Amino acid sequence: MASRSSDPAQLFGAAAKGDRGALARLLSLAERGGDQGREVARLASPHAGRGYVVGITGAPGAGKSTLTSALIGELRARGARVGVLAIDPSSPYTGGAILGDRVRMQDHTHDDKVYIRSMATRGHLGGLSLATSEAIRLLDATGHDWVIVETVGVGQVEVEIAGKADSTVVVVNPGWGDAVQANKAGLLEIADIFAINKADRDGVESTRRDLQAMLDLTEFAEGEWQPTIVSTVATTGHGVVELVDAVVAHRADAQASGELVRRREVRRREELREIVERRLELRARELCSGAKWDALEAQVVSGLLDPWSAADDMLRGISA
Amino acid sequence: MASRSSDPAQLFGAAAKGDRGALARLLSLAERGGDQGREVARLASPHAGRGYVVGITGAPGAGKSTLTSALIGELRARGARVGVLAIDPSSPYTGGAILGDRVRMQDHTHDDKVYIRSMATRGHLGGLSLATSEAIRLLDATGHDWVIVETVGVGQVEVEIAGKADSTVVVVNPGWGDAVQANKAGLLEIADIFAINKADRDGVESTRRDLQAMLDLTEFAEGEWQPTIVSTVATTGHGVVELVDAVVAHRADAQASGELVRRREVRRREELREIVERRLELRARELCSGAKWDALEAQVVSGLLDPWSAADDMLRGISA
Repeated sequence: MASRSSDPAQLFGAAAKGDRGALARLLSLAERGGDQGREVARLASPHAGRGYVVGITGAPGAGKSTLTSALIGELRARGARVGVLAIDPSSPYTGGAILGDRVRMQDHTHDDKVYIRSMATRGHLGGLSLATSEAIRLLDATGHDWVIVETVGVGQVEVEIAGKADSTVVVVNPGWGDAVQANKAGLLEIADIFAINKADRDGVESTRRDLQAMLDLTEFAEGEWQPTIVSTVATTGHGVVELVDAVVAHRADAQASGELVRRREVRRREELREIVERRLELRARELCSGAKWDALEAQVVSGLLDPWSAADDMLRGISA
Repeated sequence: MASRSSDPAQLFGAAAKGDRGALARLLSLAERGGDQGREVARLASPHAGRGYVVGITGAPGAGKSTLTSALIGELRARGARVGVLAIDPSSPYTGGAILGDRVRMQDHTHDDKVYIRSMATRGHLGGLSLATSEAIRLLDATGHDWVIVETVGVGQVEVEIAGKADSTVVVVNPGWGDAVQANKAGLLEIADIFAINKADRDGVESTRRDLQAMLDLTEFAEGEWQPTIVSTVATTGHGVVELVDAVVAHRADAQASGELVRRREVRRREELREIVERRLELRARELCSGAKWDALEAQVVSGLLDPWSAADDMLRGISA
């Protein structure tokens, strides 16, 4: 069985044919990010770019998981193969571990055209950001037409991860206006589409007016996409067709305007820069240990050597 | 004139003999942190360690500058040579630029045994932290018996800089208890001495009780220094003798217990680590530019090359 192999090339071939076990093992390799992780990136890279990446972000409790589950349903109804990355920067758990919590998504666990994976901070030496890029690329390269990246929370990491999507859906709730004032600017900046979820509650219209007022105050360039606002009730499916339509509309617009190509180029540049930085960081950690380091450190500590000369000495031996 | 020279060795010789112009130029070199800055560190290192470093930190408006000025006066009365670094991480100005604002310290500007320098974020490639370490070392190595490091504010950078002191004085005011609740824990951790400044105001005793209660809740190791609390009115000089006595007592205790040696060792280790990291960061910035980078980046952007292989290629050529 291909999926029993530990050879990335064999695993990749099997995963591309729909072997979920092989895909799971490749994702674990990619998450860990070592030599084998790099081999996975090398294999996936030429096949990536066909899939479309949708980010789902918003405050905790906004209903992102339920909405993601509803989106999966609608995308499946349209005949697409869907990959989902559920990302929780605050959780130390990874892999299948927290999948059990994502109860709503379990509707799709028996659908072999849907692959759902939870990711957390542990593992990848380059951090969650690079691990997410790898996982997106892998899902894309193994034939998932849509890759949904759901992030929990609205902090810096979430915004960073949202930057990896082709379209970003920011999920808010009625009455949102007062609750997360501080994060509004950041969310406005990344949103291509706003979903006012739990729209069966009071205050939908005022939230919509509030969002629209903020958008009206934003200066958009000629021809630039202006975020659309969709009301949803994820638990009943209300508005989900409209939400997928809004994403499809944004996709068409971004393709026509060249914005999609531009975003993906920026993303690849940023990823490359990040990899170089992380690897140098790693190198620094390696350098700051071992016998030679200990000896130099002892000289610096005792005052026999100044720290800059010691650093020179240490860095002289550096090579990738 | 030695101070007209730009040769660090000549400048250092002159500064060690009390030439303030030479010292100013060396500090500028150290602040900038390039090759000449490193040469300054190399020259200063063997002569450093005799001076004693006192950190003065606390919330804005607590009266740190006035207290620093009073401390200078008392230390001068005890016959010491005093160097002062006034550090403002939030200010883009550096060197003499903001010195004019520090009105109280001007009492000492005509005393040739007192050297006062303002430092801010601009300049040093390794950031304010490394620049501060360099400046402390230089003042120490050029015969300043005491080096006072005053930081404005109570943020992360201030705590980091406080970590470079042999004794740290945290300046609070009566009624402080309510005002900076959030920072209490951080300040408690770094304080060797608390100065309740503006002690002519109401609430000194309750602030003292408040501090003492917090200290009582802290678990100290056998023989560990327990922070002392001194009341001061910096503007009148009240309590300043007691404050200097408290610092001297902490110094004696730290010397006797070995804590001073331990702190300085930790500091040197941290500085070395920081230098290695910063230099690798710089190297990363260099690597991520230029013709070779552009060519590799173009291949990654177009999807011809995966980013890990491109990073490999880039890092292969690395040497310090």
